[in-house]
Amino acid sequence: MKVGVKVLPRKEILDTQGRAVESVLHQQGQEGVNCRIGKYIELEVPGQNKEEVSAQVKKMVNNLLYNPLIETYELEFYE
Amino acid sequence: MKVGVKVLPRKEILDTQGRAVESVLHQQGQEGVNCRIGKYIELEVPGQNKEEVSAQVKKMVNNLLYNPLIETYELEFYE
Repeated sequence: MKVGVKVLPRKEILDTQGRAVESVLHQQGQEGVNCRIGKYIELEVPGQNKEEVSAQVKKMVNNLLYNPLIETYELEFYE
Repeated sequence: MKVGVKVLPRKEILDTQGRAVESVLHQQGQEGVNCRIGKYIELEVPGQNKEEVSAQVKKMVNNLLYNPLIETYELEFYE
């Protein structure tokens, strides 16, 4: 089963990459664009049971893929 | 309008981050997991017309946010 994990910096955390992109867009004449930049992780996990896969993926994400102090994540299931 | 941009390394490109994660998962006893790691960009663009916003965002992504030689991207519209 294919699962997408979107990891974004928390709203209260300064997102330096996002700010840099906003500033370049501003210089290019694109006004009022808000940008946050994080990670996208695509996992292919064996198993078809959504609940089992979800539990497995949450464990992986918590152990390895995100820092709860500064980031939040969201899962997305394909197929 | 809120738009998500998922940027992933092309399949034929060596994804070193993804391989590192796969290797750690393997060491932790999680077998057969396939992992690719890219960027997730959340943009808030003024305007509500999906076609206009889509054209604008594509321009930004092409100019600034992804490298077509080694990456592919996908848009996602919210609201």
